This record gives sequence, C-alpha cells and structure tokens, in this order.
Amino acid sequence: MTDRSFADRHIGTSAADQDAMLKAVGYPSLEALMDACMPDLIRSSDTLALPPAVSETRAQAELADLAAQNDAKRSMIGLGYYGTHTPAVIRRNVLENPSWYTAYTPYQAEISQGRLEALLNFQTMVGDLTGLPVAGASLLDEATAAAEAMLLARRAAKRDAGEVFAVDARVLPQTLAVLKTRAEPVGIDLVVADLADPASLPAGAFGVLLQYPGADGALIDWTATTEAAHAAGATVAVAADLLALALVTAPGEFGADIAIGSTQRLGMPMGFGGPHAGYMAVRESLQRQLPGRLVGVSRDSADQPALRLALQAREQHIRREKATSNICTAQVLPAVIAASYAVWHGPAGLRRIAEHAAGAAARLAASLTAAGIDTGEAPFFDTVTAGVPGRADAVVAAAAEAGVNVRRVDVGTVAVSCDETTTDADLAAVCGAFGADLGAPVEAALPVALRRESAYLTHPVFSAHHSETAMMRYLKRLADVDYGLDRGMIPLGSCTMKLNAAAEMEPISWPAFADVHPLAPADQTRGWRALIDQLEGWLADVCGYAAVSVQPNAGSQGELAGLLAIRAWQHDRGETGRDVCLIPASAHGTNAASAVLAGMRVVVVACDEAGNVDLADLDAKIAAHADRLAALMVTYPSTHGVYESTIVEVCARVHDAGGQVYVDGANLNALLGWAKPGRFGADVSHLNLHKTFCIPHGGGGPGVGPVAVAEHLVPFLPSDPLEATGPVGPVSQARWGSAGILQIPWMYLRMMGPEGVTAATASAVLAANYVAARLGEHFPVLYAGEHGLVAHECILDLRELTKRSGVTVEDVAKRLIDYGFHAPTMSFPVAGTLMVEPTESEDLAELDRFCAAMIGIRAEIEAVASGAVGVEASALRAAPHTAAVVTADDWDRAYTRTEAAHPAGVSTAKYWPPVGRIDNAWGDRNLACTCPPIEAFGE
Amino acid sequence: MTDRSFADRHIGTSAADQDAMLKAVGYPSLEALMDACMPDLIRSSDTLALPPAVSETRAQAELADLAAQNDAKRSMIGLGYYGTHTPAVIRRNVLENPSWYTAYTPYQAEISQGRLEALLNFQTMVGDLTGLPVAGASLLDEATAAAEAMLLARRAAKRDAGEVFAVDARVLPQTLAVLKTRAEPVGIDLVVADLADPASLPAGAFGVLLQYPGADGALIDWTATTEAAHAAGATVAVAADLLALALVTAPGEFGADIAIGSTQRLGMPMGFGGPHAGYMAVRESLQRQLPGRLVGVSRDSADQPALRLALQAREQHIRREKATSNICTAQVLPAVIAASYAVWHGPAGLRRIAEHAAGAAARLAASLTAAGIDTGEAPFFDTVTAGVPGRADAVVAAAAEAGVNVRRVDVGTVAVSCDETTTDADLAAVCGAFGADLGAPVEAALPVALRRESAYLTHPVFSAHHSETAMMRYLKRLADVDYGLDRGMIPLGSCTMKLNAAAEMEPISWPAFADVHPLAPADQTRGWRALIDQLEGWLADVCGYAAVSVQPNAGSQGELAGLLAIRAWQHDRGETGRDVCLIPASAHGTNAASAVLAGMRVVVVACDEAGNVDLADLDAKIAAHADRLAALMVTYPSTHGVYESTIVEVCARVHDAGGQVYVDGANLNALLGWAKPGRFGADVSHLNLHKTFCIPHGGGGPGVGPVAVAEHLVPFLPSDPLEATGPVGPVSQARWGSAGILQIPWMYLRMMGPEGVTAATASAVLAANYVAARLGEHFPVLYAGEHGLVAHECILDLRELTKRSGVTVEDVAKRLIDYGFHAPTMSFPVAGTLMVEPTESEDLAELDRFCAAMIGIRAEIEAVASGAVGVEASALRAAPHTAAVVTADDWDRAYTRTEAAHPAGVSTAKYWPPVGRIDNAWGDRNLACTCPPIEAFGE
Repeated sequence: MTDRSFADRHIGTSAADQDAMLKAVGYPSLEALMDACMPDLIRSSDTLALPPAVSETRAQAELADLAAQNDAKRSMIGLGYYGTHTPAVIRRNVLENPSWYTAYTPYQAEISQGRLEALLNFQTMVGDLTGLPVAGASLLDEATAAAEAMLLARRAAKRDAGEVFAVDARVLPQTLAVLKTRAEPVGIDLVVADLADPASLPAGAFGVLLQYPGADGALIDWTATTEAAHAAGATVAVAADLLALALVTAPGEFGADIAIGSTQRLGMPMGFGGPHAGYMAVRESLQRQLPGRLVGVSRDSADQPALRLALQAREQHIRREKATSNICTAQVLPAVIAASYAVWHGPAGLRRIAEHAAGAAARLAASLTAAGIDTGEAPFFDTVTAGVPGRADAVVAAAAEAGVNVRRVDVGTVAVSCDETTTDADLAAVCGAFGADLGAPVEAALPVALRRESAYLTHPVFSAHHSETAMMRYLKRLADVDYGLDRGMIPLGSCTMKLNAAAEMEPISWPAFADVHPLAPADQTRGWRALIDQLEGWLADVCGYAAVSVQPNAGSQGELAGLLAIRAWQHDRGETGRDVCLIPASAHGTNAASAVLAGMRVVVVACDEAGNVDLADLDAKIAAHADRLAALMVTYPSTHGVYESTIVEVCARVHDAGGQVYVDGANLNALLGWAKPGRFGADVSHLNLHKTFCIPHGGGGPGVGPVAVAEHLVPFLPSDPLEATGPVGPVSQARWGSAGILQIPWMYLRMMGPEGVTAATASAVLAANYVAARLGEHFPVLYAGEHGLVAHECILDLRELTKRSGVTVEDVAKRLIDYGFHAPTMSFPVAGTLMVEPTESEDLAELDRFCAAMIGIRAEIEAVASGAVGVEASALRAAPHTAAVVTADDWDRAYTRTEAAHPAGVSTAKYWPPVGRIDNAWGDRNLACTCPPIEAFGE
Repeated sequence: MTDRSFADRHIGTSAADQDAMLKAVGYPSLEALMDACMPDLIRSSDTLALPPAVSETRAQAELADLAAQNDAKRSMIGLGYYGTHTPAVIRRNVLENPSWYTAYTPYQAEISQGRLEALLNFQTMVGDLTGLPVAGASLLDEATAAAEAMLLARRAAKRDAGEVFAVDARVLPQTLAVLKTRAEPVGIDLVVADLADPASLPAGAFGVLLQYPGADGALIDWTATTEAAHAAGATVAVAADLLALALVTAPGEFGADIAIGSTQRLGMPMGFGGPHAGYMAVRESLQRQLPGRLVGVSRDSADQPALRLALQAREQHIRREKATSNICTAQVLPAVIAASYAVWHGPAGLRRIAEHAAGAAARLAASLTAAGIDTGEAPFFDTVTAGVPGRADAVVAAAAEAGVNVRRVDVGTVAVSCDETTTDADLAAVCGAFGADLGAPVEAALPVALRRESAYLTHPVFSAHHSETAMMRYLKRLADVDYGLDRGMIPLGSCTMKLNAAAEMEPISWPAFADVHPLAPADQTRGWRALIDQLEGWLADVCGYAAVSVQPNAGSQGELAGLLAIRAWQHDRGETGRDVCLIPASAHGTNAASAVLAGMRVVVVACDEAGNVDLADLDAKIAAHADRLAALMVTYPSTHGVYESTIVEVCARVHDAGGQVYVDGANLNALLGWAKPGRFGADVSHLNLHKTFCIPHGGGGPGVGPVAVAEHLVPFLPSDPLEATGPVGPVSQARWGSAGILQIPWMYLRMMGPEGVTAATASAVLAANYVAARLGEHFPVLYAGEHGLVAHECILDLRELTKRSGVTVEDVAKRLIDYGFHAPTMSFPVAGTLMVEPTESEDLAELDRFCAAMIGIRAEIEAVASGAVGVEASALRAAPHTAAVVTADDWDRAYTRTEAAHPAGVSTAKYWPPVGRIDNAWGDRNLACTCPPIEAFGE
C-alpha cells in the first residue's frame, strides 16, 4: 500500500486524536469503550464476509471493469425513461459539486436558501407546465407519486365515497404495479379500464388516474373523461410527461385536479432506473393535502423574502400514526437538476426539445407507414407503436444489432420512443430494423385541440441564465449561500452526516452506468447486475440477513417493503388477522406512517425514564393484542441514541407472541462490524444507504432504503415492477430503485473492508461519547446506557435552561449559525432537546470547535437566565445575523457587532447566512409556493 | 439541433442584448461595426476551413472516439514522467472546480489569497525537500527550468567567467535537448561529460548541471563534484526528483546552489507530456535572481499577514529588453495539485510512497539479477537499467504484450521505472518479459551515505488535513476566498478571460487521455496524435498559416520558438548577420525578453500619439539597421486595443528590408474569423490557447502558446526533444508540450465552428466598444481607431483624474473589489490607465454592473478631487474593505459602513476579500517565501 488506507481518510480522527478522546471519555481503547457501551448479547460473533479493503484506485478499477460489462446502447425504449443531455455546466456545478450534494434537508432554512430557491424553481416549472398552481418539491418517482395521488384523492373524497380507484389502461405498467402494491393494504379497489370512453368510468370511483400520453404513446384528449369523473364526484389525477406539456394542453387546463409524473427527462441520466425526481401538482384547494415537501416564500426578521419548507405540520414525522403518507424525503438533487435544466433551456428551449422529440417520432411513423407498417390512428407525442405481426422479437433484435434498443410490447407490437438525444442515425437504424427506409422530415402532427396555447416558464429566472457564464455563476451563487459538509460539521442526530468521498461519487457520472435504461436487455446490463448482486450480498452480510433488495428508493419505502413482507408472510401462513404493529413512543414518525400504509394498526409502547422500551408495557400491549400482533417496529440503537440492553429480550417476547421484529436501520452506523440486527433477533430491517453507507443527502434526497430480511421472508421481498415474480408487489417504480447511485455504497464497502467499517463504527461511538463528555457539564445528556455511555449520538437537554431563560432550542440552533455550524437535530425525539451525531468523519479539531461553540452559547444563555440580558434583546433570539445586519450603519443592540457575527473570533472563512430568522407561521398563513416576482427582493 | 448552439451558450450577450448595445455604440449590426472598426486591408477573404459546429454531446462523443484510439497501458517508462494517483478529493475539488481553474494570475493579491496559500505550500514543500531555502511558485517544466538555471548561473558568475556550462551525461535527454536550443543563441557552450568524476569538470565552467538520480537511474553522491565545481567558481544546479528526495540527501545538504525538476509525480497525470509544474529552488543569496514567480508573505492594512507575489520588479514584463528570462506564466494549477498532494499525504505519506517505488525497483532488480540479467552496480532509487544484449526490442515488445510499457535505452539495454502505482502484477509482467520470475520483496538498498536524515514538510499544514473531510474543507476554504470567473467578470485587458466551458474541461480528466506517457509507442497513442493533428490544422487555418506546433507550453516559449524559426531560416539562407528585432514601444515586455533569449538585439520603434506604430520612426530604424534587420515583432491589434490601419504597410516595409514579421497572437480574440495574421503579412505568430482558445488561466497557468508559421518557416518549427528532427531544437521538454489540456481548444473549435468563432470575435469587439461608449464620458478612452472605435479592449485613462485627486489606478482597482469585481489590467500598456477587455462571454447585465461600478467610483473620485474628502481618508484609499473591518465594533471613518462594503447595494452574494490592502514593499524588504508559523495568523 502506498497510501494510507481509505478507512484512515474516511475516519476523521487520527490515532492520536482517538487516544486523547478516549482519555476524556475514560476508556483505554476503542475496544474497551465498545465493550462497555454495547451489550454483550447483541455482539456479533461471526466476522464480516465483506472482501478485504482495497485502495481508491483499485476499487475504481474494479468498478470500471463492471462498467465495461455494460453495453450502453442507444435507448428508444421509453416507458418512463428517456435519453436526455445533462448540460455539462449542470453536471459539473451541481451533480459533481459537494456544496450541492453534501447538504442536508433544508430544515434549517436560513442556511439553505440556495437549494430552496432551486426547489422553488422546480415547483414553478412543474406548476407552469401542468397548469396546476401548487407543486411540491418533488416525490420519489412517478409510480409512488401515483400512489400518493391515489391516497390524496381518497382523503379529498366525500365520506360516503366508495373505495374504487379507476386507472386508465394506458398507465405505465410499473405505475400500475406499484398502485396494486399500495392499494390492497389500505382497502382500495383498483379498476383498470379504457377510460378514453367516459362511459367506461366505474361507478363510485373516488378517483381516476389517466396517463398523458399513454404507455402506448397515444395522446388522448381527456377533457370529456375529466368532466365525467368530476360529475361523478371523483378526483382526477393525470400522469403527465412534462416534456409533452411543452406542446400540449396542460392537465390543469382540461380540468385535472392532480398531475404527477417524472422529471427524469429534464437532464437526469437514466441511471438504470433512478434516482429521478417525481413530481406532483394540485389545484389550490388540495394544497394542504399535498404529500411530501413544499417550499414556500415567507419573510425573515428584516422583512425580506426568505424561503423555507411550508406547512410542515403535514409531514409524517409530526403526524405519526395519523400520517397520510410516509414520504419524508424528496429527491432534491435530481429536482435541482431538473429545475436547472429548465432555467438553462428556458421556455423556448424546452419547446424546441419537445418539438425535436415529436418531430422525430412523426418522421419515424411516416417512414414506417410508408413501408406499410401499421402505426395506428391515435395522435402521439414521442412514441410510435407499430404493429409487426409475429415479428416483434426480430425487429427488437435487429434494432439492437444496429445499436438501438426499442421496446417489445407483445409478439406483434414494437414501441419506439424519441427524445432530446434522438439523431437521424438512430431513426435510420430503427427504420432499418423494421425493414423500412427513413423518409424525409415531417411536421409533428399534434391534434389541434390539444395544442398548447398558454405560456410557461415566464418567470425571469427561466430567461436570465442562458449563457454558460451566467449559469455557472447562478449555480455558484446558490451553492455559496448554503451550508454543506464541505463547510463544516452537520451534527444531525439520526441523520449520520458522514463523508461522501469523491472516489465514491465519481463513478455515478460514468456513462457506462449513467446511460443505461432500466429495461435494457440483460445481456447489455451484466455490469449493473453484478454490481447490485455484490452490493446486496455485502449489505446482507454486514446486517446479518439472508437477502437484501435495493429496490426501495427511500427509507420510508424500505419500511413499507419490510412491513409488507411481514404481512405477506403471515397471510401466507394463514395468519390474516395479525395487523397490530407495536411501535415505541420514541420512534421516528415515519415508522407509524409506514405501518398505516401497510394496512396495520399502530399501538404505541411506552418508554421508561431511561428512554428504553418499557418491558412491562410491552408485555401489556402484547397481551392486549395477542392474536392480532403482527410486528414490533423498533429502532436500534434507539432514537434516544442508546444501546438498549433489553433488545434481545424484547425481540424474544415479540417472537414468542407470534410477532415479527422489524429493526429500523436508521442507526446502523452504531452497529456495523460489531452487531448484526439479523443475528440478535430481527426479522427485517431497512438500511439507509444515504446515512451509514455514504450516499450523500443531496440537500434532501435522494435517499435509498434497501430492505433486508431473514431467510423466511426472502420470498416476500418486493417484485420486479414489470414481471409479477412474487407475492409482494413492487414498492418503487424501478426494479433496482435508485440504481444509478449504488456505486457509492459499493465503493464505500469495497474501500473500507471489514476492519474499516468496524473501526468506523467505534470511531463514531467514541466521537459521540467525547461530545457528551465535554458538553455534559454544560447541558445535561438526556439518556445514557448502563455505564453512562451513549451510542453514536447524544441528546442535550435544554428544557431546564429554557424554563430558566426563555431561550429555546430554536434560538440555540440559529445562534450556532453565527458560530459557523449547522444545528444538531432539534426537538427529536424529545421536544426541547438537541440531538448531536458527530459521525466518525469529523476530526478532533472540528469536534472541539463545535464543543467550544456550544459552551459559548451556554454562557450566553446563562447571561439571559441571570437577568443580565433580556431574551428578546439577546443575540440568541436575534440569530442568525446576516452581513446586512452586522454591517448596517446603525447599531442599537444590547450586544456588539463582534459578539453578533464573530462570537468565536473573526475568521476569513466566516459563513454569512443570507437571511435572518425566518417567520414560518407567516409563510404558512400567506402561502406562496412559486417564484416571487423579482421586485419582491428589493434591497 | 435540440439545444441552442454552443456558440449561443459561449457568447454571453443574446441577440436582444446585442441590439441594445449596437444602438449604444451607434451601429446597425455587428457586420457594420466590424466594417467600421477593422481595416479592409486585413479582412480575410477566404472562409474558415474549420468543420461546422456540433453540439456539446456530439463533440464529446467524437473526442471519446479519439480517446478510444489510445491504449493507456501501464507505464514504467519513466524518464521524467511517472504513474501517480491523483487523490480523488483533489481531482474533484481542484482540477475540476471552476473556482480554481477560472481564476487569473494573482496580481490582485487581496482576492487571490487561496491560491497564494496553496503556492506558498508548494514553495515550502520544494524548499523542504530540496534543502534550499527559496523556491519559486513553479516553472514550466523540468527542461526549461534547467535552461533557466543555466541562465541564472551565468548571471551569478563573475564577469570573467567563461561561457561553458557543464552537463552531466546522466541528464534527461529532453533536458539536454532544450539546453542546446537555449544555449546556442545566447552564446553558451554546453559540455556534456560524466561528472561523477570531479576531474571531468571542464575548465572555466560558470555552471554545472547534475541529475539526481540520473536518467539511467543511478543515484550518484554528488558531494565531491559539487565541491570541485565550487572550488572552480561554478554554480551547481541539480535536477532532482522530489520523490527521491523523501529518502535521499537533499541537494542543499550536499552543497548545491540550485535545484530544479518536475513535480509531475506528485499527483498530476502524465497527460501525454504535460502540463506539469517545474520547480526551482535556490540558496538565499540567489533569491533575487530567481526566474518566474515567487509568493511571499507581507502584511495588510490591518497588519495581518497577507500573501502576494514578491519581488515583481524582476519580472520580464517590467524589465523588457533587460530581462533575464521571458517566463511570465507559472504552472499554478499543477503546482496547486502537487502542493495539495503533499498536504494530503504529509511527510510520512510521501516517505511511504517513495519507499514503495524504491522497494519495487529493488525487488525488480533482485529478480532480474537472480535470472542472470545485469542491472549494474550503481545504487538506484526507482529505475532499474538492465543489460539484455541484442534483446531490448524483444523485451520491450514482450512487456507491452503483457500490458506494461518499459523503456528501450539502446539495442541491448532496457530501463524500468517504478512509481506510486506499481503493483506486484506490473513487476511480474515485466519480469516475465525479461524471462525472469518475480522474487520476494527485498529492502530498498539506498546507499547509507545518501540516506536522508533531515525532516521535511514539518509545517502544520502538511499534517492537519489528512482526513478527506478536512481536506475537502481546506480546499474549499482556499477556493472561497478567491475571485474567479465563477463569481463575476474579470475584465483584464490583454488577458481574454472568457468562458472555460464545462464540456471543454471534462475530457481532460478522461483516463484514456490523462494516463498516457508521452513516450508510449505510437500505436498506443493514435487518438492523441489524431487530436493534435486536427487541432494544429484548425489553428493553422484560423490564423492563416501553413503549420502550427503545439509544443511551446507558454506564450513566452511560443515567442521564442517563433523567433528561433526566423533566425534559423535566415541563417539557413546565409544571412547570419541579421540580429536586430524591432519592437514597438507599446509591446508587452515578454516580446523583448524573448528576442534577447533568441540571441537578438532589441530596437524600440516609437508609437505616435494615436498609439500606432510611428511609420517614420519605423523607416528610420529599418534604415539604421539595414542588413542587421532580423524581424519586427508586433502585437495585432496593438496592445493599445486598436486595429492599426497601417499594419499591412508596416509588414511590407519590414519585408522589403529583408526582415520577417512576427505578429504576437495575444490579441487574436479580436481577429478570429475576420482576419488572419498569416494572410495580412505576418510570417509567424504564437497563439495563446489560454486566452482566445479557452484553456483556463488556472489561477496563473498553465498557459499554452503554440507557434504558427508560414510555409517557408515550416522546416524551422521546434523539434522532437528526443529525436533531432530539424534545425531548431525543442523549446519545451515534451514533444507536444502541455498535450494533456489540448482537449479544451479542440472542443472549443469543434463546438463553435466557423460561424461561432466569427460571431465570438464580433461580440467581443462589440462588448469593448459598448463599455467604451458607456464609460467614455466618465473616463477618457485613451486610444481609438479611425471611427473612434476600439477593438476588443479599451484603455481608460485616469492620469488626469489622478493628478486632480491623488486617487491612483491601484485605488480604483482595489475599490472595485468592494463593488464585487476583479480589476482591469493596471498600468499596462500605459502607466496610470486601466485596460478593460470584457470578452464575448459576459452578458449585458454583467457589463452594465461593471459600468455602474466604474461610474460609482468616478463619483467617489470626484468627491476627493473636489476636496470634499481627503484621499487618505477616502474609501478608495482604504479599499478593499474586509468583513473584519466593516463589522468591527468601532468605526471612525469618513464614510459609512454601507458605503465601505456595499457601495452597489447590499447583496447576499457579496464577495468579502479576506485581507485588506497589502503592503508590497514591506514584504519585499522582509522577504519570507515559506509558510509562516500558524501563530502569525493570530486573529
């Protein structure tokens, strides 16, 4: 080895740092620390089967070998995934820029204005194109967006509405498959019919889903169906292709209530299926029902416009078992790319791209027709469906031979989708495969009735940055106001904001991975499949399970998949009455929401004073629900950041009662290499690849949440969306979910090896205990295990201080910005506390800088508590301080400018928040979720 | 086309913008403007043969096809180029980050502290490793560094010293070739001998160059030779491998006066020859003689340490015909990468890497010896030279067959160099090629006498950033304090700071280009050669020449190559007496310096009041030098930014007198597509690919300066450094110079096509005339052509204002920082003026923002001139204002904080300079050119 091992680069603390930290914590070695804080019972006796670590270069070389096993042919398969040119300026300055991808979800809005602006652009773009005024900040994919639309329609329905959701036969097959998975547990009857005829609408439907254009390419005028559905009291959702909407009437214009779909073709590579930003837009009266995240405009303490997540009270983490959706991640990075693509191309550019796709399809259809091939009568946008009786396989094979993949619909039908990247050569190759000659260009013949007349992307942002210089600067300006891991520590408890190494990230841009359609023939995707097989195997190994499916494209979908596996297994055994899911009071709200969506009833189990599951209450709840007990869903270490010593006992009692144990893998970073959930009692877990396994948070997504199961549950893993291969349907639209970023955890595990991941875990635990030890005398640490130790995070209890001083956790969080930090997790799992998770990637200097900041703030709180400073007049309440405030000519505050802006000393690396404290309530009362006019930002 | 053309993305102004600007300038169209400002006589009648533009995607696809024609085998060729792992964190955050690569040379030091710190790290690293206290901020390559060392040694010699420079026979052959090129014109006699024996030192040598280790791998103890040379009054320069110096005695330790070499193997890819940072370090008494750039520590207006270029009075652009070197570019980006590599690995890491290379070589030697192959007696570091009588070609072929390139020395000798990347598999393959078996690992057997005992990289910066998180943040912190094109306009006259598009930049990282050794066999480098052939052809076409050589790796080397071509052609015709080079007074100082180095005498031709070449004086000078006239060297458009209408006449008169015409291509951005120097009278030009052809300035290099010549001069282009193919030797160490970044101009020309480059030129001219029109009433525009128009830049004359107010151009330049701008070129070509070159890439909004800033500053100057404000008390003199100053608790200035920091209004995108006005003179008096102790930066 010529270099230090990658593990030494990934782990922030050096051996010398760790010695000093161990001394502070009071243990002689990492092993001794782990022995003391992790219960023996859960300790794993088997070693990891993970291959030994290799260097960055070697790992990338191995991955390049896998990439070379893919054959990224030109794709005209379509069906929800299209060729697109990611503009190089966006690839380099967003997708490959740590300032964008290492940022967290914009909960601390004051230091997230850049990506919030990008997301507002996204919402504006979606709203404009769909003709529906309120669009969210992205959903996981088109299929799950359809499922969310279905659930939203049911919520919007009258109480006496039926349970029927009608789906047009032209819906994308993967969407239909996911709808089936999602409808059954919550008692919805899906009815599939050709809804082009309004008379086919089933009676009593509370909602309808239409595809526009359809999977067969047909561009139907849905006006009559929409009117008929409305007349019958149904909500109408339209799955619409945003690129088509540049040319055809918007769903909002023909009366749809909801539009959903994918933004993949706006600049995101196909990536073998994902991640891509799904979208949803709704009419105004549904805006408070919108699932997922919504960016809104509010104002800050200086009365300037400022952005933040709006209507957060709707979110699952707050509503728990009353949740109507379990979505807790957006696809921020893909959404930023799609929005930036719209900013880059503008309205004229988007129209030109749409016309190109439509023109290519029209020319193809004309060429095939000229050769006597039937391409149907229906108008179309970009997809031509051709009848080739008995010849489909031959045509597909001939096209592949010529370098282009097309779609076999059935034995006598082939579909071909055109897109931004389609060239004359592609068209000629495809024509050749059909035995036709490519004819001259023709006009795209969109039906007159559907021609779009309305404008879109009219906001100046979509016209101001069309030169690359301007675009580069705009993207930098946005990135510059945000706080990511590239600036400093983001010590967010439960979020594991660790290093996203460049060597892990680079391969996601490799064309041999990025340019592969998820439905490309298996012989062209050997590299992808091998990568996924290896990764699933490694993940199963490190967690002690029999198998893993990477399909769930967010933790929430992993939870759902896990619970559906339990449910299906029990149903398979005839235990159809089991529907109670026990969840400790400390659980993340998503757990409860997922249980509801899996058709379970949530029963809360109390925690004792130490924060552990209350065994007596557990027994009582088990007894009370006896035969109804389906599962216990528990996070380990608990969300209190402690290794509960009773976990094995808890698992045993649930098993004894016939239940299954679901261990939420959110806190796996405290276990890896030392304990395996699948070995200490769990039947199923989901893993957060965007936490423990280094996929970056992307500013709020993509998350990736594979589901891992014990042997008996393997048959109940989610199915392929296009081949009904098992009893449980798919939970995501693509078979391998967000495949396009699985190179990241693959690289991580390949470079860390068994020793590396084991060392990382212990280093993370040491860091948390070090912070707890240093800050414990200033802020009580709320929970601890038997030796007074925490696991990988610690909860600082501010409640007493708040009582004494009036200074809230929010004040502390905002004040930390002045000190140059992102706040820890606020008020989760316990209101009035801050949860700190430093991870293994921070070095000692940064940990100490954070402790010093917290100690400094503690002194400021004391000054308030002692009455020396009034809370309203304090720097704490006025935080964060912008440069505009601190450099203003007038200063009449109770503290100095230096105290305001440089509480830790003047630094040239000072991070200046672009806005002051944001008024969330005002924004929710005055909801505005599209780009405000430029004038609003008068300076 | 689905997208706007790349030209529309590259050119910042839209058609609507241009209409508005044309109105302001008073012309109806771009064509009319160009007709008015460009003399008919020079207008090109032939169209460009450049292929028509293609899209970004298509151009990258074509380039990928070329890349695929390379076969990047493992290289163990050595000879100055070695395998190295560019750390991914550095590749992503430096090499691929516009904040680093779009920055300019750090003349405006206050806004360049990030790269100045990185360069100080470079100097410290070089100084530590070489054991010589003063290292410069990098040179062009090892061979030209050797030439600079030769010239430095001559300057340092006593007046009565001879003209002999002694070179050890082990010197790298490309170094020797460049030395030959450079010695002859300036009258130095090179003597090559085996200097291991001090008795072989030629008598009367003013200097000596030793190689350490030698090209043959031999590690000689040079102590005795050094002592003997010193005794004879010679200066001793050592070409040393920095990686070897991690293990063996430093040149400074055995008495060398100068050390030079390459830093390529510290993280920079081989890139088919460059760009790589050369280095030079000298003993203290030579520090003021050091060629190139030197970063030094000084202090700012708040008495804080601050970095800037030291001793600038030495630089060629100031010394003109008295210059001792024509170096005016460093290799900043490669130097930053090398320095960052040292920061990343630290002393222990560097030693480990060196030990790996040495260990691999020792193991290889032992294996070969065991097989009866003679590997000589000399100690070695990383290179094994093996005697294989009559078998060299067979061994080389067998190794290549096994995937590894080794070096054929002669028919019976093969050399193999090991490096950081060498694997057991590589060694086994090579052993196999020799018919040997790879033996067990052995100790590297460095001679005890040469074992390094002294420490290096002891400054904390080399130990503080070893985790990737820490390194990523350090690199961001440095980038964040600098001002690059990604922040805003850099309107530097004569520097053409235009867009460096991401699509142009991406291919330089492609391994199939980056990982190729310049001496790899031709059948493995077909793609590289095809790319270079195409590019040279395109460049010749657009400039109207018969041929181009991309070898010169800086504009200065291009000038030298062009002048050497003229000289050789004249000598070839027997006109050996021609040695006078006429240069107008307005010329860039480098012209004169290059002429001196080409063995010419400089005679200055006066300019008239309009800034044009004074024809009468030209005639007089021609007459005065008659038979001695070698050449006229002129910039067109002139450095005054005007199309001189007499250029054709000027060329004719020089030709009539038997001279050749050299047109400096610095201002080609005002000609491309409209006029061709090779057609309107020039015989030779150099082109600045880092200006007109989009290679980024890299924060101060790499520059690339191909030489272009008319038909009669083609035989006199620079030769291959390793094959004496022509009458003129090589000017750079690699045959194709900085090949590794030629993808950038290739992409630019491929994506722009003939119409694109033509439009770019006119757009640049329009932008300059627009700025001149808008600012003319506030600042006189110094020179203009016949219709009152400028070319692509304009000179704002502040001399009268300075007289009235005391406000200097420096004050204005620094005040522009407060407004968020990089200053225009200061006091060149006329002292007391600012030269503005907006280029075609800026959009109208940015041009207007700049004009508004200049008008704002004009009002501030007026306030001083009118006596309302004293100049010393003014915001102009106190500029730039740091955040520390503006947020300080005390404020007692004559202007407000808002006026200080937000003269253009408060902006969240405010750029804060990290330091205040820097005291250059203080720093030069207290020269300090290595990292200062941390304590110096107390806050």
